[in-house]
Amino acid sequence: MNLILLSPDDLEAEGVARVRDPRRLDHLGRVHRARPGDRLTLGIEGGGIGRGELLSLDTREARFAIDELDQAPPPALPVHLVLALPRPRMLARSLEHATALGVKHITLLHSRRVEKSYWQSPELGDDRIRHHLVLGLEQARDTHLPEISLAKGFRPFVEESLPDLLEKRRGLVAHPGMPHACPRNLTAPTLLLVGPEGGFIDWEIEKLLAAGCEGIHLGPRILRVETAVTALLARLF
Amino acid sequence: MNLILLSPDDLEAEGVARVRDPRRLDHLGRVHRARPGDRLTLGIEGGGIGRGELLSLDTREARFAIDELDQAPPPALPVHLVLALPRPRMLARSLEHATALGVKHITLLHSRRVEKSYWQSPELGDDRIRHHLVLGLEQARDTHLPEISLAKGFRPFVEESLPDLLEKRRGLVAHPGMPHACPRNLTAPTLLLVGPEGGFIDWEIEKLLAAGCEGIHLGPRILRVETAVTALLARLF
Repeated sequence: MNLILLSPDDLEAEGVARVRDPRRLDHLGRVHRARPGDRLTLGIEGGGIGRGELLSLDTREARFAIDELDQAPPPALPVHLVLALPRPRMLARSLEHATALGVKHITLLHSRRVEKSYWQSPELGDDRIRHHLVLGLEQARDTHLPEISLAKGFRPFVEESLPDLLEKRRGLVAHPGMPHACPRNLTAPTLLLVGPEGGFIDWEIEKLLAAGCEGIHLGPRILRVETAVTALLARLF
Repeated sequence: MNLILLSPDDLEAEGVARVRDPRRLDHLGRVHRARPGDRLTLGIEGGGIGRGELLSLDTREARFAIDELDQAPPPALPVHLVLALPRPRMLARSLEHATALGVKHITLLHSRRVEKSYWQSPELGDDRIRHHLVLGLEQARDTHLPEISLAKGFRPFVEESLPDLLEKRRGLVAHPGMPHACPRNLTAPTLLLVGPEGGFIDWEIEKLLAAGCEGIHLGPRILRVETAVTALLARLF
């Protein structure tokens, strides 16, 4: 928690915020070993970053006097990430990595090798997803929550959503055995598609390429989804 | 498990191997849903890769008829990774990521912000470390185990080991706020140092720079150790 991310609910009047959820209180006490008078980094959801003084901390709440939150959060990556829905624990970590790295648009996609039961996972609940996004933001000192969308059908996604997404973005599908190595140092808007464990099936790859995506690879090593997502984002941008 | 990594103990005479540990048996049955007659990717520890036919599988053992294991494993990264010892769960995942990405030399280093208790963790036992390395190799279809060394004192490491390590390698220390952005697409031998959560302290950074390392950063975002390790390796090489 390199930043205490304040939601509108955390704000009292007149430059004072209070935090009441056990997770953050515990972190402040046990990890930060924070004491009244300490100055910590605060940010307001969707807004600026600054410092604040801890006024009080007990098991019930922490109160802060906020300075001006006038610093901009770190820049976002120019990417929309389309991720074949990973198994729940992998999803959680992939969301945290991607959010920490600055991804602001994530679509979770069904594909043939995604187990249907994954769509029933409690990890897909709004609160659980938000939890992992907030962890990523707190880690990277960011304040802008990514937007998450679900695409529960591969064909409707490709036929109805993908053309619009590709209108202003370069589409890249990461898949072992594709002809081109992952490009580096991109700055233009990009749509990055990452398959499930086991990969997209051939038919899916054909549809994505036919829609205008370029196939890229990260070399001969097969990586876990969460490793691949981080490696792709770090190499691309 | 994209490769069944055979240790010398797994080999019987005349091109037959058997696997008896519950983890791999379970994975073969439950994840691969393997049946006698299936052809799977096999590799021999420290050696080649090829295919083999599953002869039998029950709760006690799996037996394979091995073809020639004559393919080379994927190339290694030209890097020696020096990682300030992370907390145990982060260590486990960082070892898996780094191994999957092709790192062959890892030194776990003490530094001021490493909690001393981490050095007592069962995760540092030979068997536990080997377990995580094997998971990384199985994931990436590699056969060469990384070498792990422990450096339990920062000053002795810098004074006694670092000069030798830097003799034939470019030293890079990744640390927020360093003047240079992480370079890209390196091919020369590199020593990469990554600090603990909270970072190296100023004195440590000074010592590393004075020893000839270059300070590099990954941008304004503060990343978790496991995210940073993957991102650095993917961007550097």
